[in-house]
Amino acid sequence: DPNLKIFSLNSNPGLAQQIAEFIGVELGKCSVTRFSDGEVQINIEESIRGCDVYIVQSTSGPVNEHLMELLIMIDALKRASAKTINVVIPYYGYARQDRKARAREPITAKLVANLLEKAGTTRLITLDLHAPQIQGFFDVPIDHLMGVPILGEYFQAKGFNKEEIVIVSPDHGGVTRARKLADRLKAPIAIIDKRRPRPNVSEVMNIVGNVEGKIAILIDDIIDTAGTITLAAKAISESGAKEVYACCTHPVLSGPAMERIGNSNIKELVVTNSIALPSEKKTDKVVELSVAPLLGEAIIRVHEEQSVSTLFD
Amino acid sequence: DPNLKIFSLNSNPGLAQQIAEFIGVELGKCSVTRFSDGEVQINIEESIRGCDVYIVQSTSGPVNEHLMELLIMIDALKRASAKTINVVIPYYGYARQDRKARAREPITAKLVANLLEKAGTTRLITLDLHAPQIQGFFDVPIDHLMGVPILGEYFQAKGFNKEEIVIVSPDHGGVTRARKLADRLKAPIAIIDKRRPRPNVSEVMNIVGNVEGKIAILIDDIIDTAGTITLAAKAISESGAKEVYACCTHPVLSGPAMERIGNSNIKELVVTNSIALPSEKKTDKVVELSVAPLLGEAIIRVHEEQSVSTLFD
Ligand SMILES: Nc1ncnc2c1ncn2[C@@H]1O[C@H](COP(=O)(O)O)[C@@H](O)[C@H]1O
Ligand SMILES: Nc1ncnc2c1ncn2[C@@H]1O[C@H](COP(=O)(O)O)[C@@H](O)[C@H]1O
Repeated sequence: DPNLKIFSLNSNPGLAQQIAEFIGVELGKCSVTRFSDGEVQINIEESIRGCDVYIVQSTSGPVNEHLMELLIMIDALKRASAKTINVVIPYYGYARQDRKARAREPITAKLVANLLEKAGTTRLITLDLHAPQIQGFFDVPIDHLMGVPILGEYFQAKGFNKEEIVIVSPDHGGVTRARKLADRLKAPIAIIDKRRPRPNVSEVMNIVGNVEGKIAILIDDIIDTAGTITLAAKAISESGAKEVYACCTHPVLSGPAMERIGNSNIKELVVTNSIALPSEKKTDKVVELSVAPLLGEAIIRVHEEQSVSTLFD
Repeated sequence: DPNLKIFSLNSNPGLAQQIAEFIGVELGKCSVTRFSDGEVQINIEESIRGCDVYIVQSTSGPVNEHLMELLIMIDALKRASAKTINVVIPYYGYARQDRKARAREPITAKLVANLLEKAGTTRLITLDLHAPQIQGFFDVPIDHLMGVPILGEYFQAKGFNKEEIVIVSPDHGGVTRARKLADRLKAPIAIIDKRRPRPNVSEVMNIVGNVEGKIAILIDDIIDTAGTITLAAKAISESGAKEVYACCTHPVLSGPAMERIGNSNIKELVVTNSIALPSEKKTDKVVELSVAPLLGEAIIRVHEEQSVSTLFD
């Protein structure tokens, strides 16, 4: 369909290429560079008038660069008379700033939603928002996809004995996610229950559930500095787990993350390509799964809808 | 007045401090840092409920970092019940992307205006917008200040003989600005008239006006890579000017700028601190003038207005 255009910005060109191949189209031609002073320069090199345009861009680090590229691209597409501007954000940055935890904090996840809509976004396709409530920060339609099936499939293919495995949530906030993975693998769950007995005393890691003699699979949405996940891995080993895997949708992996994972007892870290991994993070322990089919399917579905609605315009 | 609060973000702390001293207040307490993954983290460390808040931040390079700091700060202030949020942007980045010069270009200067308003800006104080039309990109009130008086005062203090000087615009677009400086110095103007006789033939620099035997003062709003200004300086020397000065409000000075200026026949480059100069750009040739009194006066004037309007609320 010549009215379907997919453009990649700079966060995730590999994934965008895979999505285009999955759908069977060429990526749209555009260059996204910088002027001498660092300002974003965008040239869209083909007509998109009347088209349904999809932009693939994670707001991963450098988050402010990637977000501004996205906003400026949306502005350019709007002014060039795109029919719809569908923003595909595999990793939605600033999602952890989704509420005022203390006085006078910003709610940057909502600010970003407002900025994307103001620029001209007509629809959002995204993956594992840190909190599903962020969907409500938008007034445009959202397709909110889940990474769990992709992670689940990977572990299923390992052929572990069902009785042997346990899915572990590294904190209370992630229990729902762990439950979803456990359902797919027909496994029980366990939860790491951190507690600080008194102020200024270090946390106690209590494990709710049985991990003894088991293959434990830790799951989180984001692994950032990897402090939580490596401490959790240590705690479940100490409680008798025989092997520890870790998985997440979004491998932020900032600061000390790679060193911590390298030094940990985690056997494999299974992630998706929602955030492009630079080569130095593609170590032996890291397994990268592609979300291109998942996002590609969503684009096809949305585009069918959009084409149908045109018939009734 | 305890209801007047001035906050500095990271682009221009020195200027913000000078403005606070000029007005006779302390800067508001806040920290603007980064999380491990590079996301902006802002903590406002004093109550601002019901206050008239002024944020000093140029959207100079790194422009996307500085702009996002500003937007997130505005969001935090809005949610903390500031009465007014007055944004002081001495240098307004992305101002050169103020129109579609080619098909499918963004108009980023307008996008930025929209983002600032959406975030919660209630008023803008800014200096020498690249095009005065950018004022119309905003619906909130703007105070648009001029750097020419500050530059003019500096050259006046040099005590040049009026008959000796000529103000030169490096291109057609800058003639109005040159005229303003010339009026203050009671000097004539000249214009560099670039022309490309045939395609793929290098430009001819023709000088309209008389520079022979004169002290020439080149003026522009922005000096970025310094290509235009150093070529202009060369051309006016070759036409017989005995000394060449250059001045501008906004010293972007990116890429080869410092090298070009160092190697040029420009005797002094006179700039303002609308953009903070890193120490390596503070060479012997560079003279930096402060816009703190200008911005400070504007803040006092606006704040008086805001206090008065409260009386009638
Ligand atoms: N980029 C970030 N890195 C680390 N912490 C963050 C980041 N953004 C927000 N936060 C903090 O993380 C907390 C929310 O995380 P969570 O409890 O996992 O939803 C809040 O206290 C935020 O201030
Ligand atoms: N940061 C920048 N550096 C250099 N050129 C730019 C920048 N931003 C926009 N432009 C281009 O500069 C031209 C406008 O400059 P002017 O003619 O001086 O108003 C347009 O063609 C823009 O594409």
